[in-house]
Amino acid sequence: MKFICHKSELAKGVNIVMKAVPSKTTMSILECILIDASANEIKLTANDMELGIETVIEGTIEEKGIVALDARFFSEIVRKLPDNDVVIETDTSFRATITCEKAVFNIIGRSGEDFSYLPYVEKNDSISVSEYTLKDVVRQTIFSISDNESNRMMTGELFEINENMLRVASLDGHRISIRNIELKENYASRKVVVPGKTLQEIIKILPGEADRMVDIFFTENHILFEFEQTKVVSRLIEGEYFHIDQMLSSDHETRVKINKREFLNCIDRALLLVREGDKKPIIMDIKDGSVMLKIRSFIGSMDEEIEIEKEGKDLMIGFNPKFFMDALRVIDDEEITLYMMSPKAPCFIRDDEESYIYLILPVNFNAASV
Amino acid sequence: MKFICHKSELAKGVNIVMKAVPSKTTMSILECILIDASANEIKLTANDMELGIETVIEGTIEEKGIVALDARFFSEIVRKLPDNDVVIETDTSFRATITCEKAVFNIIGRSGEDFSYLPYVEKNDSISVSEYTLKDVVRQTIFSISDNESNRMMTGELFEINENMLRVASLDGHRISIRNIELKENYASRKVVVPGKTLQEIIKILPGEADRMVDIFFTENHILFEFEQTKVVSRLIEGEYFHIDQMLSSDHETRVKINKREFLNCIDRALLLVREGDKKPIIMDIKDGSVMLKIRSFIGSMDEEIEIEKEGKDLMIGFNPKFFMDALRVIDDEEITLYMMSPKAPCFIRDDEESYIYLILPVNFNAASV
Repeated sequence: MKFICHKSELAKGVNIVMKAVPSKTTMSILECILIDASANEIKLTANDMELGIETVIEGTIEEKGIVALDARFFSEIVRKLPDNDVVIETDTSFRATITCEKAVFNIIGRSGEDFSYLPYVEKNDSISVSEYTLKDVVRQTIFSISDNESNRMMTGELFEINENMLRVASLDGHRISIRNIELKENYASRKVVVPGKTLQEIIKILPGEADRMVDIFFTENHILFEFEQTKVVSRLIEGEYFHIDQMLSSDHETRVKINKREFLNCIDRALLLVREGDKKPIIMDIKDGSVMLKIRSFIGSMDEEIEIEKEGKDLMIGFNPKFFMDALRVIDDEEITLYMMSPKAPCFIRDDEESYIYLILPVNFNAASV
Repeated sequence: MKFICHKSELAKGVNIVMKAVPSKTTMSILECILIDASANEIKLTANDMELGIETVIEGTIEEKGIVALDARFFSEIVRKLPDNDVVIETDTSFRATITCEKAVFNIIGRSGEDFSYLPYVEKNDSISVSEYTLKDVVRQTIFSISDNESNRMMTGELFEINENMLRVASLDGHRISIRNIELKENYASRKVVVPGKTLQEIIKILPGEADRMVDIFFTENHILFEFEQTKVVSRLIEGEYFHIDQMLSSDHETRVKINKREFLNCIDRALLLVREGDKKPIIMDIKDGSVMLKIRSFIGSMDEEIEIEKEGKDLMIGFNPKFFMDALRVIDDEEITLYMMSPKAPCFIRDDEESYIYLILPVNFNAASV
């Protein structure tokens, strides 16, 4: 095999497929990037058996062939090469020579015979969203998946399509994050659960352009994301997702309008008093015109007043401050509205169109100590 | 105690003294910052018994007093406060209230009775250098101190004054780094060894202005750095430093002029093939007009040719690539000159005025395998 491509193009491609190289594995071939120049394109592939990524890079093939190279070393070498054309050449024993300007690297490659290619995905059933939207919607919901593998369903995100609406949701038993996006066309109804890890990697490699589209294909067990020169295939999580609609309610006794930035900064400061693993709630004492936010921990205490617009009953309610932080960080609105029922019932943060709904369960607190 | 100061002024002061707060200690008072507003200035102090730092911040004292606050929590709180005036007030039981805009923090303080103030340093014997020069010269030599406490002398840097020359040097048994700086005045001869840790912290907090001076005072056991509103006192390392002059030589058989950037980038790439703890040398095969740099490791190999100007004998010599990297990174010259005698003798990198001298010992290599 022999081909020539520019360093920047090679580095871009390697960076993309690296996301599917497992950090630990007992199958050493999975630690490799497969470079396939056996047809008329140069294709890089990595596959950890859950998630597989392939991307095509620009270059000139002088001799067709395939080689598998250790992903870590290859990526580090590529990153440090001068910014110029790179020649990659292998001999019959898969010894690879990487030449760029006057630097010549030799590393030992493998045939790639035992490499697992990406599963074949039939392209019947698909939707299309912009790179920007997909990236945004995942970022705005991914934080409330659970990292506890004992409930595998919670480690994924729901992608639900109904006519021209896409709903993306995640939950971890303490909170639910939902985003609703309008699509440009009507599609067949679909409900799949995508592993969180897949989505976390996709948002890292997705350029996020508003005017370029990602095609998403669904099969029984897989989801395929296609954008630009890249394909990402992931297994789906099997089983039925939680019935989210049953957990939502539009009743409320107290409605609060609050400046998001002020609220966020205040919780950020309150978090200083909470050490890792310590579960001190932030107490919101909601009255007409203002909320007093209070936190007490063994380190000290903080009190801060924020002006609000309130409708309905006064309320004192406690929350895990981190859960509020996570939700507030991904809401773009300057002013947000909280809907609450009682100190025991969930708080909803949502806009009028319900383009977003964040549900956060309150926590118990000792009212006497506040 | 009660005083008012701006958040930015407080944050700056806290950042400076934090450098003397030990990360681990059995004496809990050392984990505190002492705030002393008992006179007409607000002084922050931290002291880990080796290194002590105090700095004066601007503010208005409304009630004189002293308090010691947990350094970590206090610094985190200060960092997150709004960008406005901060009021710090303590009661008779050293409970501190920190108020900024509508945020009110309460943390528990201590009397500071058992706090260790900085040792008193008599100001007889001193030199003066610019902040810029001090910062520069430490950065250019500090990398070759040893972190092995078993030879304490090697963990420090030599500061040697002779008339109007300051020599700063460090060595770790494999290499020596020397910088010679001309001072503006003549001073009495002095030779002290300053702990590396002290210097590493000083270059972090020294603003590095070319037109502002640092006064350095010496006593038998201590060194004091005074700049702007800050004093840094450190113990000295006791004993006699190595006789560096005996290790230097001006003989050479081979002289090489090489572009620093090309040389540095090449070694940077070669280092990719060396794993942590692995001691593969980089071989320099020096001929007329060019040097071929070669590295062989179990990962692979690299060869790269660089144009040079050579005088004297051809030479093949091997080095630890990291040692060359460290020295090349801190030399500002575009072109550097190497002086070598034989594959067994040290290589010198130095300029004509000897404002810098870097000595690097070669390593053995198996010529047959190159």
